[in-house]
Amino acid sequence: MDERLIESAMRRALELSVRGPARGVNPRVGCVVLSAAGDVVAEGWHRGAGTPHAEVDALSKLPAGSAEGATAVVTLEPCNHVGRTGPCSEALIAAGIARVVYAVDDPGEHSQGGAARLREAGVDVTAGVLRAEVEGFLADWLFTARHRRPFVTLKWASSLDGRTAAADGTSQWITGPAARARVHEQRRASDAILVGTGTALADDPSLTARGADGVLLDPQPIPVLLGLRDVPADAAVWRHPRPPIVLKTRSLADALCELQQRGIRSLYVEAGATLASAFVTAGLVDEFAIYLAPTLIGGPRAALDDLGVGSIDEQRRLELIRVERLGDDLLITARPTGGAAGGHHETPPPGPRSSDRPAGQADGT
Amino acid sequence: MDERLIESAMRRALELSVRGPARGVNPRVGCVVLSAAGDVVAEGWHRGAGTPHAEVDALSKLPAGSAEGATAVVTLEPCNHVGRTGPCSEALIAAGIARVVYAVDDPGEHSQGGAARLREAGVDVTAGVLRAEVEGFLADWLFTARHRRPFVTLKWASSLDGRTAAADGTSQWITGPAARARVHEQRRASDAILVGTGTALADDPSLTARGADGVLLDPQPIPVLLGLRDVPADAAVWRHPRPPIVLKTRSLADALCELQQRGIRSLYVEAGATLASAFVTAGLVDEFAIYLAPTLIGGPRAALDDLGVGSIDEQRRLELIRVERLGDDLLITARPTGGAAGGHHETPPPGPRSSDRPAGQADGT
Ligand SMILES: NC(=O)c1ccc[n+]([C@@H]2O[C@H](COP(=O)([O-])OP(=O)(O)OC[C@H]3O[C@@H](n4cnc5c(N)ncnc54)[C@H](OP(=O)(O)O)[C@@H]3O)[C@@H](O)[C@H]2O)c1
Ligand SMILES: NC(=O)c1ccc[n+]([C@@H]2O[C@H](COP(=O)([O-])OP(=O)(O)OC[C@H]3O[C@@H](n4cnc5c(N)ncnc54)[C@H](OP(=O)(O)O)[C@@H]3O)[C@@H](O)[C@H]2O)c1
Repeated sequence: MDERLIESAMRRALELSVRGPARGVNPRVGCVVLSAAGDVVAEGWHRGAGTPHAEVDALSKLPAGSAEGATAVVTLEPCNHVGRTGPCSEALIAAGIARVVYAVDDPGEHSQGGAARLREAGVDVTAGVLRAEVEGFLADWLFTARHRRPFVTLKWASSLDGRTAAADGTSQWITGPAARARVHEQRRASDAILVGTGTALADDPSLTARGADGVLLDPQPIPVLLGLRDVPADAAVWRHPRPPIVLKTRSLADALCELQQRGIRSLYVEAGATLASAFVTAGLVDEFAIYLAPTLIGGPRAALDDLGVGSIDEQRRLELIRVERLGDDLLITARPTGGAAGGHHETPPPGPRSSDRPAGQADGT
Repeated sequence: MDERLIESAMRRALELSVRGPARGVNPRVGCVVLSAAGDVVAEGWHRGAGTPHAEVDALSKLPAGSAEGATAVVTLEPCNHVGRTGPCSEALIAAGIARVVYAVDDPGEHSQGGAARLREAGVDVTAGVLRAEVEGFLADWLFTARHRRPFVTLKWASSLDGRTAAADGTSQWITGPAARARVHEQRRASDAILVGTGTALADDPSLTARGADGVLLDPQPIPVLLGLRDVPADAAVWRHPRPPIVLKTRSLADALCELQQRGIRSLYVEAGATLASAFVTAGLVDEFAIYLAPTLIGGPRAALDDLGVGSIDEQRRLELIRVERLGDDLLITARPTGGAAGGHHETPPPGPRSSDRPAGQADGT
């Protein structure tokens, strides 16, 4: 078959995948079945956890036996995993599919191995068609699948000397309206927003994403409370439009794993100095959003406390990604040099959340 | 007389003034004497403290009696002050000058009043011709004359979380070569560079301005040591090409006044957190040069300690002047909002030192 037909089927599969839900545990996947002659005979896509995978969805549209000798073109390596649905590899084999073409390997610990299983069963398997496009589109999901945690953005707002509040704890306002508006945009673009119980108890934050006029933006991030202490029943967070996730632990690794299992791919951390320092020390920050206001405060309330940096060779070097001026303030976006999000020749990690469409895709699909 | 002749004489006076020394207690001043017919009959300029002022220098070139009825065009209001030289006002009156035109009022406490004295003696006095140009050229001297202290630039280099060193005090290197080169340029462009005894004792800095290859730049800032403690005789600062000024005081006001009296117009402060915080708290910083390296350090060594900011409404707001990327680092230039250097509708203050030439002036004059 003409490889151009394969590539155009892959483009169509990518378009179909966009119809799936942008958030959640599962990736958005699309599938096109081509007859031996190269005609599109079925299309499918995944509609979210608990519903059929894209391959199974496409096959379900074909009369029994009619997929015999056909080619399945799918954006992600077919899974080999018995979850709420059976493994796609077995479904493809059972349907008599002769060739499977996919874009991106499945990095999931339990789901990977589909390509090997297919080859074992005599199916012709081709990987990597439109890999870059699909990797870009799936970046946030791939990140969580590879690292088994959400992409973590740590945000703080401080003076130029690194203080977040005056000695008495007052901090309104250090940054101006443009910076605060950007924080709300970043909240909205995140699957979840996390604070420590320290911040929850001190500030009673609502953890909503709001527009300039105070109206709730759409979508809202899920609020997450981390720490052993209880947050009182009359706290603002309980009135959040989405039910808060309460993680009664001090293990950041456990907390992040739990969040990933709940389908959270991007986490916006707005903790105080205690938890912010714990995230940095543990090497669990993928991106920093540091808002700097043109002011000096001095005194005890620093954005970060101790990071265990005894000597200068233990400093935590970052790479500056962007410096933006927002009104009177600066937003510095930085990433750890050589951290999970950088360096390792893998998919460039997403911003808080990758766009809802593959690059270059027209509207209305 | 045609006022265009006056203006062109003022331009010439400004050109002549440039021949004077760029540093020191006295301003650079030029003077042109015009005959009643409008011809240039004498030129003069000031060559530095202890030598004749520009007016006296110009008059000295004329035969006795020949200035009778002439016009003196001078860049600064003639002084009324008996210093190492007699007051220029009296010299002009004695020479029979009929008209004095000057650009900028003398703000000096002891020297001002020359215009009033001249008028009293019946001389026709015009102020403000080419004021903006001359104010720009004399900005650094005017600043010191008005505020009775040098223009103070406070520099520090810190991590994004405001730390200047690791817990053990090690700090080499936080910023990269481009930022360090800029610091040496800023040192070179300053009349003096000040550290506290704390820094002198901890770091044994040479306080020289050096090029990339370590060679001494020209000119060198005068090193200044501030604090009661002695700095050992084998310290690097004693090998500085210019003799250090030692100020055994903790009064910043006294220290700055003393420096102004020694002709220092621009002071580059590279103190540690103790003295830096004292300068900020006292409101004695005109410009901040904050070098931020993309790194996180945490811990006890902040760029600033306590500033007496108990509540957020006492924060020290700044105005961002410039944000520059220098290699991997940022240089943030900021000024206090409404400080001595800003706001008061006065001459825009100089950078560390104003240029050696009036704006638009050709080379070779
Ligand atoms: N400028 C900003 O951008 C910004 C942002 C947020 C907050 N703040 C300020 O920060 C202040 C609160 O700071 P904070 O440091 O107390 O609050 P925090 O960092 O939000 O919460 C600290 C709490 O988190 C819990 N925790 C869970 N896992 C932890 C771990 N691995 N290590 C340490 N603690 C863990 C602990 O509570 P348990 O004892 O309950 O386990 C701990 O006391 C507030 O005044 C707030 O205004 C500023
Ligand atoms: N990152 C940077 O840009 C940078 C720059 C410079 C220094 N540093 C670091 O800072 C550390 C030294 O810090 P430091 O705070 O000890 O040194 P410092 O601020 O340079 O000097 C402090 C000393 O200045 C004297 N002083 C004079 N007037 C004062 C006043 N009004 N208020 C308070 N002190 C006054 C006092 O000494 P007496 O007791 O003698 O009167 C005081 O102990 C070094 O480790 C150095 O590496 C970093």
